[in-house]
Amino acid sequence: MKTKHILVLGGNGFIGVNLVNRLIQNRDTVVIVFGLGVGDNKSVKYVQGDFNSQQALENVFTTYSIDTVVHLISSTSPADPDGLGMIHDINSNLTTTIQLLNLMKKYQVRNLVFASSGGTVYGVDKNADPEVSFTHSENDFNNPISSHGIVKLTIEKYIYLYSYHFGIKFLILRISNPFGENHFSLSHGLINVALKNIINGEKIEVWGDGSVVRDYIYIKDCVDIILNLLDRNIVNQIINVGSGQGYSISEVLNVIKQVTGGFDISYYPSRKFDVPKIVLDITKLQSLIPFTPTNILQGVKNTYEWTVDQMKKIS
Amino acid sequence: MKTKHILVLGGNGFIGVNLVNRLIQNRDTVVIVFGLGVGDNKSVKYVQGDFNSQQALENVFTTYSIDTVVHLISSTSPADPDGLGMIHDINSNLTTTIQLLNLMKKYQVRNLVFASSGGTVYGVDKNADPEVSFTHSENDFNNPISSHGIVKLTIEKYIYLYSYHFGIKFLILRISNPFGENHFSLSHGLINVALKNIINGEKIEVWGDGSVVRDYIYIKDCVDIILNLLDRNIVNQIINVGSGQGYSISEVLNVIKQVTGGFDISYYPSRKFDVPKIVLDITKLQSLIPFTPTNILQGVKNTYEWTVDQMKKIS
Repeated sequence: MKTKHILVLGGNGFIGVNLVNRLIQNRDTVVIVFGLGVGDNKSVKYVQGDFNSQQALENVFTTYSIDTVVHLISSTSPADPDGLGMIHDINSNLTTTIQLLNLMKKYQVRNLVFASSGGTVYGVDKNADPEVSFTHSENDFNNPISSHGIVKLTIEKYIYLYSYHFGIKFLILRISNPFGENHFSLSHGLINVALKNIINGEKIEVWGDGSVVRDYIYIKDCVDIILNLLDRNIVNQIINVGSGQGYSISEVLNVIKQVTGGFDISYYPSRKFDVPKIVLDITKLQSLIPFTPTNILQGVKNTYEWTVDQMKKIS
Repeated sequence: MKTKHILVLGGNGFIGVNLVNRLIQNRDTVVIVFGLGVGDNKSVKYVQGDFNSQQALENVFTTYSIDTVVHLISSTSPADPDGLGMIHDINSNLTTTIQLLNLMKKYQVRNLVFASSGGTVYGVDKNADPEVSFTHSENDFNNPISSHGIVKLTIEKYIYLYSYHFGIKFLILRISNPFGENHFSLSHGLINVALKNIINGEKIEVWGDGSVVRDYIYIKDCVDIILNLLDRNIVNQIINVGSGQGYSISEVLNVIKQVTGGFDISYYPSRKFDVPKIVLDITKLQSLIPFTPTNILQGVKNTYEWTVDQMKKIS
């Protein structure tokens, strides 16, 4: 079997670390990770570089014969509120991705997996009742209410353009809210951050009244899905990647309580750039590959045990 | 009646000149034109400035109390082919429009009319038959095959975001291919350029085999529509502005032949960033205002007469 070279952009991030850990189990795959961090895994070729520097990225393409690029880099989060943040978002995410697409065209790299954002690209239709219509399939309207969502959507459009004109094959994955092992952010990801705070004896921070509904996907499910789609050579598709189930923050906290026991909560004002409710319709995903989401209680238990282990290592 | 201050960005362009000429006929309207050109119309306040300079634009907002901004500036055309053109397109059109939206928010200017692009924002669905499904209503898919189209669409998304969060009222007009009086470009706009070439005894340039289908709208119809929508205070709508009728280039040349007599044609290879066929569904427009498009033969006749007069003035 021919050896495949997979370049992972953002391979030191949450999804990236989990994906790379699984990719290196394939003997016929060489994994190259490009980004700001460094790794300690002997089976991975780490290339340090800034995604904003086209030259650093081009060096990767001249050094390795890449088969597939997995693009997981996102330098902003949905909460960035002002116009300045928007223009930064465009420069650091959109412009850089166009540079990536140009390099893929130049070096004839044919396959791209892009992590889009299931939580933000649909947004809110002012004319629809958000209490009723918040489960979205891939062909639904796109009215993002955050710059993060608009930029993700715009990147999707440029990928389509490059696919149309230059034959790049894409998998655009609109991923919901992932949680689970190998999560190191202290600010993003309700479940992971809450578990860290509980173990540290700190309060849990909640924005809004706990009614915000999200689709949480266990990270191992998310990685399984990506590998499965790659294995089956499914291309030129936009696919929702989520559990297909909605949980309010209050419901998630109840699940966490079952696993950890009690904790205290600090409530903060809701963030207006957050969509009130969003669940992904995963009918399309399940028509392409077999997928049954891990029960959220089981996922949270696993994540809790990993977090406890991790804290022991640090202290 | 209270005097209204309307700021026209791109007021020296094709649509802009025609719109301004009509706006100044209203005694209760003060028209301010901001852009690179200068005008000679006493009833208009011309402010010279570069749309890329936020300071120049801000000066307009501090000098005048603006009620409505009509944003007609577009610094690129659909044909820009490469990645460099794309990034220029983003910087000069998208980033500048976000700066405009920030200024509107800062100075509490509540109304925005934006000239989007009916010909490019729909694009081509790879899974659909382009010979069958090329008449698009406002809720159809958006798969642009030019950066120009993606940027227009992305601007629409940011306008929606500012409307959602900050209450800016918008009219997004997806305008088809306008033709008619006061057109001065020597490269854009098949009908106008062809008429100029014929009068100058030059060949007409055609890209492709003449089968490309477009929706041509007579400029006076286009301006009527904009004024009518403004008069009726129709806001927060995305509206196709076209004739609703499709003509191939060959058909358009036949109409031109009826008006002008014979001419020679030079054929050039088709441009791949052009959509093969596009006609706008104007059902929504006609549900909002009364509108019957001017017959294309009549429109071309009027345009021909204006062009002949214009050429006499120049020579």
